[in-house]
Amino acid sequence: MALIVHKYGGTSMGSTERIKNVAKRVAKWHDAGHQIVVVPSAMSGETNRLIALAKDIMPQPDPRELDMLASTGEQVSVALLSMALQSIGKQAVSYAGWQVPIKTDSAYTKARIQSIDDQRVRRDLGEGKIVIITGFQGVDDRGNITTLGRGGSDTSAVAVAAALKAQECLIYTDVDGVYTTDPRVVTEARRLKTVTFEEMLELASLGSKVLQIRSVEFAGNYKVPTRVLSSLTDPLMSLEEEANSGTLISFEEDTHMEQAVISGIAFNRDEAKITVLGVPDKPGIAYQILGPVADANIEVDMIIQNQSVDGKTDFTFTVPRGEYAKAMDVLNKSVREHIGAGSIVGDTKVSKVSVVGVGMRSHVGIASQMFRTLSEEGINIQMISTSEIKISVLIDEKYMELAVRALHKAFDLEKA
Amino acid sequence: MALIVHKYGGTSMGSTERIKNVAKRVAKWHDAGHQIVVVPSAMSGETNRLIALAKDIMPQPDPRELDMLASTGEQVSVALLSMALQSIGKQAVSYAGWQVPIKTDSAYTKARIQSIDDQRVRRDLGEGKIVIITGFQGVDDRGNITTLGRGGSDTSAVAVAAALKAQECLIYTDVDGVYTTDPRVVTEARRLKTVTFEEMLELASLGSKVLQIRSVEFAGNYKVPTRVLSSLTDPLMSLEEEANSGTLISFEEDTHMEQAVISGIAFNRDEAKITVLGVPDKPGIAYQILGPVADANIEVDMIIQNQSVDGKTDFTFTVPRGEYAKAMDVLNKSVREHIGAGSIVGDTKVSKVSVVGVGMRSHVGIASQMFRTLSEEGINIQMISTSEIKISVLIDEKYMELAVRALHKAFDLEKA
Repeated sequence: MALIVHKYGGTSMGSTERIKNVAKRVAKWHDAGHQIVVVPSAMSGETNRLIALAKDIMPQPDPRELDMLASTGEQVSVALLSMALQSIGKQAVSYAGWQVPIKTDSAYTKARIQSIDDQRVRRDLGEGKIVIITGFQGVDDRGNITTLGRGGSDTSAVAVAAALKAQECLIYTDVDGVYTTDPRVVTEARRLKTVTFEEMLELASLGSKVLQIRSVEFAGNYKVPTRVLSSLTDPLMSLEEEANSGTLISFEEDTHMEQAVISGIAFNRDEAKITVLGVPDKPGIAYQILGPVADANIEVDMIIQNQSVDGKTDFTFTVPRGEYAKAMDVLNKSVREHIGAGSIVGDTKVSKVSVVGVGMRSHVGIASQMFRTLSEEGINIQMISTSEIKISVLIDEKYMELAVRALHKAFDLEKA
Repeated sequence: MALIVHKYGGTSMGSTERIKNVAKRVAKWHDAGHQIVVVPSAMSGETNRLIALAKDIMPQPDPRELDMLASTGEQVSVALLSMALQSIGKQAVSYAGWQVPIKTDSAYTKARIQSIDDQRVRRDLGEGKIVIITGFQGVDDRGNITTLGRGGSDTSAVAVAAALKAQECLIYTDVDGVYTTDPRVVTEARRLKTVTFEEMLELASLGSKVLQIRSVEFAGNYKVPTRVLSSLTDPLMSLEEEANSGTLISFEEDTHMEQAVISGIAFNRDEAKITVLGVPDKPGIAYQILGPVADANIEVDMIIQNQSVDGKTDFTFTVPRGEYAKAMDVLNKSVREHIGAGSIVGDTKVSKVSVVGVGMRSHVGIASQMFRTLSEEGINIQMISTSEIKISVLIDEKYMELAVRALHKAFDLEKA
């Protein structure tokens, strides 16, 4: 008997029929003797419907009122799921975030969880009840409703699992796990049975988008074993089979000793490259370039500054393609003359490809094998950026699929 | 400058366009220097949509979960109205019932308000904010969300007005006030500028359905001056004109000294009459007849038991027509033989007509004038029941309109 947290996304909760299926799955776990807490998202489409109502009233709604509005979507979900469980003979009780309470800071629409009181939930679990808690939301210390931002239900689920010291947090979603790369690009892509949370962080931020990145950070900080698995399977499939499906995000390094050095190949098509040429190499220059870009709310991804020659250097970074024009505008208006740079050049037809794996920490030669593979395919590398468990390169977008396939093969990722 | 509570029904809140109109009206009152608290209902159709989702999951949903679900409708409304006020330059803040808090008992789906904390609201009003509070709901002392039942937003508004000692509670609705009778039956029906709360109670319970009856009781108990007025007027109409429109439910008896003896003619088509014949006249007999009827959840309206003759009497009461068959069944199965009554007879083609007015307390001859008027029209009276401010008769339903028109004229109700 264990305490387990289930999280179901909006698609799984998309209709009363689907909610009944979620109830069947949850009941199966409860029947097996486990204590179950469920964190469901709003029914698919509901959050968008609510936001559309708000935008219809004013283009930039007040964040506090937006949270007041948007949080109702999950409240509807928990009540309906509780009813669905009761309709098949289970004792169930639903709570909004403020009732638990899940305490957050006051950063409306992007609040951060500060603490979760487990008393009420533990008492209910002890009485044999299934507890259902709204995802995506909490309450600040003045009693205002806050939301954690899009995808925040993943974070809620992991945080609840951490607070309850749950044995596992199961994130049911519409993919059946984390793959070595996108199966639409490489048909031989293989589902990983486990990844470390650091790998998951890199894979998520590089575009795998299986889990909200903040939930992975949370899982990492609190060492919550978190499993990503499919909600599209038969809800009455064998529990043992289900419990071992998907991909487990693990925190035990030694489980990886026998594993491949590289876990996966991530990629991102949505990159645009900007280079500020002839930048004087002096303290504070990076801030003077990127400060105005950040102030314009433009997210920066890769950043590279090379060794200077004759007191001048070139400063390159990438931004989402949709922000390229805005970023160029900011740089030309507020930065170039101010810092005494030469010209500014850019390219929107670039993609990023990364090899990710905790294994590379203890293995030399990963970078050289990556570069050799790309070279053999005739692919020019425009930028390189590395971390302890990741090597990313920026290449011409037309070679992206080729690069991913070649690297997937070179690192033997199709083999278990 | 006064503190005023506005209440808007679901139709007034039915779309973002209409919510913007509500905001314009509220802003007009605030511009005139008043402190304004608004209690809106859920957008029309929303509560029904939520209940339908619940029924889709199980026919008899758990009341606690039903309240968790249904309360979201009003939360959506308050957030949208707050945004609409902000979009026209007003400071506004929305609260759910639990945030005020509005404390209730734990009778889910039909909770009663126990207390309202005015501290948070007063602070906001003092800062120049317009405060928007969810109708229909509160929180019990264990932190569970409760709802007050259908139409509960009227009660919320009056209760908030009582807690804040508001100068007036304005209930904006889709009728423009309380009439001497239904204008669809008597074209000369006249809008009353004021009614006493006792008259309003009788008029509401007799089918005027302008205000939820519990809200009128609340207004009476706490002496909250409550005005029913139209939400269909131009939101920018002159404030002075608007403030004097509709019907004021008043608590000052002397304002009625010059008024007509009778305030209005109420009626109810939905009546069925049941008579238990030859009932032994002994203690406890009324309870033995009506106990099983009440246990079957059948609402009883008029009850008449006449003087007994030879130790036997006839016991007559009325029920809603939809409950007639069920009531007859209960009586025949569980009551007749048990109490040693004769037969049971009934009639579903009856209507109730009542004259209502606090003035009749101090005027004799109202009953006789009523009976004479009906007699002159050849209408037979089947049952009579009286209270201090009301005389009701049961008649053949085919004479109902005739009776209402004749009484309206006989009591000069078309004249101000």
